[in-house]
Amino acid sequence: MADQQARTGGDKRPRRIPAIRWEEPPEGPVLVLLDQTRLPAEEVELVCTDAPALVEAIRSLAVRGAPLLGIAGAYGVALAAVRGFDVAEAAGALEGARPTAVNLSVGVRRAQAAHRAVLARTGDPAAAAAAALAAARTVHADDAEASARMAAHGLALLDELLPGGGLRILTHCNSGSLVSGGEGTAFAVALAAHRKGRLQRLWVDETRPLLQGARLTAYEAARNGMAYTLLTDNAAGSLFAAGEVDAVLIGADRIAADGSVANKVGSYPLAVLARYHHVPFIAVAPVTTVDPDTPDGASIDIEQRPGAEVTEATPPQVSTPRAGGGIPMAPLGTQAYNPAFDVTPPELVTAIVTEKGVVSPVTAEALVQLRTRSPQVTND
Amino acid sequence: MADQQARTGGDKRPRRIPAIRWEEPPEGPVLVLLDQTRLPAEEVELVCTDAPALVEAIRSLAVRGAPLLGIAGAYGVALAAVRGFDVAEAAGALEGARPTAVNLSVGVRRAQAAHRAVLARTGDPAAAAAAALAAARTVHADDAEASARMAAHGLALLDELLPGGGLRILTHCNSGSLVSGGEGTAFAVALAAHRKGRLQRLWVDETRPLLQGARLTAYEAARNGMAYTLLTDNAAGSLFAAGEVDAVLIGADRIAADGSVANKVGSYPLAVLARYHHVPFIAVAPVTTVDPDTPDGASIDIEQRPGAEVTEATPPQVSTPRAGGGIPMAPLGTQAYNPAFDVTPPELVTAIVTEKGVVSPVTAEALVQLRTRSPQVTND
Repeated sequence: MADQQARTGGDKRPRRIPAIRWEEPPEGPVLVLLDQTRLPAEEVELVCTDAPALVEAIRSLAVRGAPLLGIAGAYGVALAAVRGFDVAEAAGALEGARPTAVNLSVGVRRAQAAHRAVLARTGDPAAAAAAALAAARTVHADDAEASARMAAHGLALLDELLPGGGLRILTHCNSGSLVSGGEGTAFAVALAAHRKGRLQRLWVDETRPLLQGARLTAYEAARNGMAYTLLTDNAAGSLFAAGEVDAVLIGADRIAADGSVANKVGSYPLAVLARYHHVPFIAVAPVTTVDPDTPDGASIDIEQRPGAEVTEATPPQVSTPRAGGGIPMAPLGTQAYNPAFDVTPPELVTAIVTEKGVVSPVTAEALVQLRTRSPQVTND
Repeated sequence: MADQQARTGGDKRPRRIPAIRWEEPPEGPVLVLLDQTRLPAEEVELVCTDAPALVEAIRSLAVRGAPLLGIAGAYGVALAAVRGFDVAEAAGALEGARPTAVNLSVGVRRAQAAHRAVLARTGDPAAAAAAALAAARTVHADDAEASARMAAHGLALLDELLPGGGLRILTHCNSGSLVSGGEGTAFAVALAAHRKGRLQRLWVDETRPLLQGARLTAYEAARNGMAYTLLTDNAAGSLFAAGEVDAVLIGADRIAADGSVANKVGSYPLAVLARYHHVPFIAVAPVTTVDPDTPDGASIDIEQRPGAEVTEATPPQVSTPRAGGGIPMAPLGTQAYNPAFDVTPPELVTAIVTEKGVVSPVTAEALVQLRTRSPQVTND
């Protein structure tokens, strides 16, 4: 019984609509999402009143991006608890909604653990639900805080690697405030460079098949007054060849214990291009993205998405990018290979930037050390 | 006074519509093109009665692909001559329609030279026009012949480089019978492998922004009963990483004297990926694609196309992919970097396959030697 409702704001431009927020109207608590499948054409909010609605929003990519999925997952558990649904069932469904992003599981489990602990101690479902909600709010606030720290660490790294002059940064997919409780991961670093007057140009990969770069990163770049240029993913090669890229900044959906980075499909070819042209390739992600239970790149479960995302065009106003509803762009019956992510091995990753500091070179040992570090001891 | 008319065939599937043909109905001679911007949704023919109509068809990519542009250019000159228009003016306009494909100029000049020679000798415009048309027919027939030879040379090269086992071939853009008087260039090699039972799978890059892979190569692969799978351009990285690509086959729009290959944007990143994964990267093109007047890659004039091709979606049924008529996929005002081609340096090209034989390794000397070779002496 998925219960989503669409809600459109009256005035559009001035107010920034947050990617996610918890609301408590008289009818009962709800999770309100900015429907990212409708951007940049429309700013429409999706109101979820139960976990199945949220699962559907996650699957359709109305809500997406590793850190935001963690926040959404935690609120989803809280929503189930507060509204009296089966919390374990909701948690299971939420965790399974997308297999690659580890943050989703981490968020779900934090809220579920808080709920379980209070329920065991007090036997009071209301107190347990309140604890789940508090945990979700903490996940949310922590992410905003982590975002600011990543931006500071990332900017310091850029200053160190590329001192002086305007930076031409290439980014892939979307990793800004639409994926975060704060200003994001990779995008937040580029934004910090922009605010410091160091960003000469943000090269925005359109990011096929769902065009998160064209639709979402361009939207965020425009809103922040950054100098940006959109390109097809395959045009990045000529930019590298022409010496027009100083650094590549990407987010991450899962980082294996050995430092292999799973991120939006198309990241790995950029890493190979960056290596060939001696350009730094930097992944920016919260520490929760590092999964000690995934030993290496080969162990990362890569989500395969419907071929219709490739064979059909789904303009944002026409419909949400769900399989089967679009306009055919290939002959009927065409099969497509459509992995959502690819994996970049650690030897191609110049640095991993987290809220706890920077790992470079990227090794399993350095990642273990990083995870046990407290955020306070870093020099930001 | 561009005069194009659209014409739709009655029955669609059984008959293969040629990409280009000369017709002489009672109203006067015309050049009939299969409108490639409408494929695979509709098989519509464009009837050109003068050179400006053909220039428009070239610019809008209704007719495209290096060898086919050469044929079209030659017929365009013949059309102007036969219909009594200014031949020099038509030739100039045709040559300037697209700057990167050298074959276009070569075709135009062959027909123009034939016209000029007969006019100078006989002073008879009708005889000169007939000579231009004969030259165009020769360009057409030569290309069909060259296509068959390239396929044979290419298949022999694959047998040599990759003996035994089914081949998984990755291709980019479209290089089949839609770009040729015959079966094409790179695609013709894959088709020859298919007919010999050596093709396990054709990986078809969708080829953004205009999706010639999804629309045209998939269409040709399906028509020929080949096992093919479509992918977004940026998903090729994971295929290479998984060892799923045995060879990359691409066409070429211009090859510089040093062996630098200009081809559809996205070819260069594939060359870098191929090198990184020790996979052969092979360009297939007629000898006319080699331009001795272009010394190196840096001298190749790269056509920049309208940003709207990137920022807007133009499904084939809705409209032809001309700038400005599509559905916005990025925020209004978004600037795009949209080169039509990129350049792969010779050191990344394993081999160049032509109708006169194979050049490998690719060097300026070997290309000079190849151009002076006669097709007869090759071992096909």
